[in-house]
Amino acid sequence: MTTLLRELAGIAGDANVEAPVPRAALRDATEAQAYAGRADALVRPGSAEEVAALLAWCYRHDVPLTARGGGSGFAGGAAPEGGIVCSLERMRAVRALVPEGWRMHAEAGLATAHVHRLARENGLWFPPDPGAAEQSQLGGNIATNAGGPHAFKYGVTGDWVMGLEAVVAPGEMVRVGGPLRKDVAGYDLRGLLIGSEGTLGIVTAAWLRLIPAPEAALPVIGLYPDADAGAAAVQNALASGAIPAALEFLDAGALAAAAGLPVDGGSAGAGFAVLAEADGPLAGAQADRDTLAEALEDGALAVHAPAPEALWRWRSGVSHAVIAQRGGKLSEDVAVPVERLAEAVRGTVEIGERHGLQACSWGHAGDGNVHATFLLDPGDAAERGRAAAAAEELFDLALALGGTLSGEHGLGRLKAHRLKDQLDPATLALQRAVKDALDPKGLLNPGAKLRDARAA
Amino acid sequence: MTTLLRELAGIAGDANVEAPVPRAALRDATEAQAYAGRADALVRPGSAEEVAALLAWCYRHDVPLTARGGGSGFAGGAAPEGGIVCSLERMRAVRALVPEGWRMHAEAGLATAHVHRLARENGLWFPPDPGAAEQSQLGGNIATNAGGPHAFKYGVTGDWVMGLEAVVAPGEMVRVGGPLRKDVAGYDLRGLLIGSEGTLGIVTAAWLRLIPAPEAALPVIGLYPDADAGAAAVQNALASGAIPAALEFLDAGALAAAAGLPVDGGSAGAGFAVLAEADGPLAGAQADRDTLAEALEDGALAVHAPAPEALWRWRSGVSHAVIAQRGGKLSEDVAVPVERLAEAVRGTVEIGERHGLQACSWGHAGDGNVHATFLLDPGDAAERGRAAAAAEELFDLALALGGTLSGEHGLGRLKAHRLKDQLDPATLALQRAVKDALDPKGLLNPGAKLRDARAA
Repeated sequence: MTTLLRELAGIAGDANVEAPVPRAALRDATEAQAYAGRADALVRPGSAEEVAALLAWCYRHDVPLTARGGGSGFAGGAAPEGGIVCSLERMRAVRALVPEGWRMHAEAGLATAHVHRLARENGLWFPPDPGAAEQSQLGGNIATNAGGPHAFKYGVTGDWVMGLEAVVAPGEMVRVGGPLRKDVAGYDLRGLLIGSEGTLGIVTAAWLRLIPAPEAALPVIGLYPDADAGAAAVQNALASGAIPAALEFLDAGALAAAAGLPVDGGSAGAGFAVLAEADGPLAGAQADRDTLAEALEDGALAVHAPAPEALWRWRSGVSHAVIAQRGGKLSEDVAVPVERLAEAVRGTVEIGERHGLQACSWGHAGDGNVHATFLLDPGDAAERGRAAAAAEELFDLALALGGTLSGEHGLGRLKAHRLKDQLDPATLALQRAVKDALDPKGLLNPGAKLRDARAA
Repeated sequence: MTTLLRELAGIAGDANVEAPVPRAALRDATEAQAYAGRADALVRPGSAEEVAALLAWCYRHDVPLTARGGGSGFAGGAAPEGGIVCSLERMRAVRALVPEGWRMHAEAGLATAHVHRLARENGLWFPPDPGAAEQSQLGGNIATNAGGPHAFKYGVTGDWVMGLEAVVAPGEMVRVGGPLRKDVAGYDLRGLLIGSEGTLGIVTAAWLRLIPAPEAALPVIGLYPDADAGAAAVQNALASGAIPAALEFLDAGALAAAAGLPVDGGSAGAGFAVLAEADGPLAGAQADRDTLAEALEDGALAVHAPAPEALWRWRSGVSHAVIAQRGGKLSEDVAVPVERLAEAVRGTVEIGERHGLQACSWGHAGDGNVHATFLLDPGDAAERGRAAAAAEELFDLALALGGTLSGEHGLGRLKAHRLKDQLDPATLALQRAVKDALDPKGLLNPGAKLRDARAA
């Protein structure tokens, strides 16, 4: 152990190596279902060169290396299976901010909220808006290709990444893309690293694309008796001709948990809510808001136009409000073709009932992306077991509806064993070929994303 | 030869195998610089299964296989270096069109213009708008990750591809992604295949994302005395707060070649033009158009608001108008950080002068994407040689400005030898590792994109 620590300290400095590993560095948001990893040491490199030296050391000594950002993930991707944890928290420099070129060059440890603030202070906007913006880091968002409500119109994190600096096996720094909005010179390794959950390489910095913030963002919210009426309203919004910036939903259970919807009468009596936001120049946003409000009228108990700040503050509290019901939750992020939304929402509740669990869902209706959630007491092992079994049925449902195991959280360790059910054998083999080409020793975040058939 | 043809006919049918290969199937738009390939046979498979059988046959017999679409590429990517040409022209089925889900599932041989028409007939829009829409095919657009004027706001072809069916070595059909707007379950092999120019696999079908067409699209055009004033106007448009749908430019030579700008007085006397389009709901588009028009005023000789149809018709004729000057051209698509635009535009003309060639440029100003062009007589070998030498200097300039060899055409065979100058050795090695993992025999479009160091 002493030799290990001495060698790691030689790479990142004494102050930046810790053993035993602090509890917080072994966990992510799956802590709410009592999940944690184990590791021998935590290292906090201060530069991409130090990350490269660390990976080189791991490759020489056959030691696993798991990168972590803010630890707000929902799939156990940052809960290591042994070896070294590499925290990017010290790498939070803004290397360049070029407002006239609509771009920023930032290190992976920068908090998402910091990226948002810097953009705003320069008259610009970074649209990806995953939850936990103060906790999560840019590198983690890139590793999971994080989404969020505004992904409906603006796309996910990867759509705003023009280039990456990354460290790949056996300990090399690479740069794919750069400060360029278009570049097809090589293969799109930028896209390959984005969403790879630290299993193909470790992202150390990114060139981000920014845009001017819309002059106005005007939400409307429709309340419905049930999921069928609500899903019909989502279809009406899609058929309205407007392009919503966000198109969200909450089912009855999520609405009941998240009190305080900031409109007259709250959400009392509603079994489903649809939130649509129009944005753009004020005059255009107003026109689209009116179009969307009209589309949401059919079958609605009520349609409101709340103040955007209050509505989004309420919306960002939904996840915690749901946790507060019983102290914990198992929350997934399956996605289905949008016309199958009602089936996924109803199916989640039915699966919960079969396993004796309260269930609810909310999420990104326009993307068919459902945060299907089973409430649990994290101290109750039997309940955790039932929730895990319910999640397996949820994955079956998502795949039966033509959907995916994960729309925005990634597979981490908790879903990796199901990839074989989503992909046909030839496609799975191709995934494996790419992993083997980039991480031949299988030391990068082992067990996450693409769990070896031998280990499954 | 007879055995070869008999075996290929066994795969695709007698009527769909040709040898010798018709001249048109050996060429792309680089014909304007007298470039062509060679191959032993042309096969036109009718299904993905037949493409898989064809690749399996090639892998068994160590025969190169080059896929081709409409042959409108500018980099020689569809000019084969021996072996078999696989034309996707028979695969043009629309497998599904789901207007309420904003999506289409179409085969690779469908013409780009056909995709546009189908979307429009269903009240929707497929934004990618590369040139040669009647000639080019969906598969070719995907293989090069084609852009176009509206890529500035809406992104390139890959941004509208949710999933792919493809054939990979040694002859397997795979499916990556699908009818889902978000999917992070596996590695993004969709992104890896997009833009890979047929060197990692052959795309046979795609799930496309569509959106409602904007209610209004209102262009403005500013005319300037020279490139410096014009590039300053581009910066002013970027700083205006509006998000242009397109932000294009033409330099003096391109303006002179493309007569008939549909505004009072045409482009007479102008040394540079900047075209900005505002779109969205009518009221919003009008607001943005006014904002952009004001931003373009500074330093302008004139600012006009032409009718969109006439303006885009004129704009789409620019490439042919330039060819018409001397019968041929060598046209590149380097991209630079947007603040270096004027240097790229001036540099193109200076490089032309050094090589005794008329030069001009136009393209996607907001993306820093410059169609730097040297005019030539395709029958004059000495002139073609001087143009090729000029192109090498242009690549040097693009890289010196922090840019890329290619923003939207790909590297094909004509630029592949320069990738080593854009990427550092570790990044280049990573590209090679991916190629070797997916095409271990190097039979897929050999010589294109990633030219082996041994062959360079």
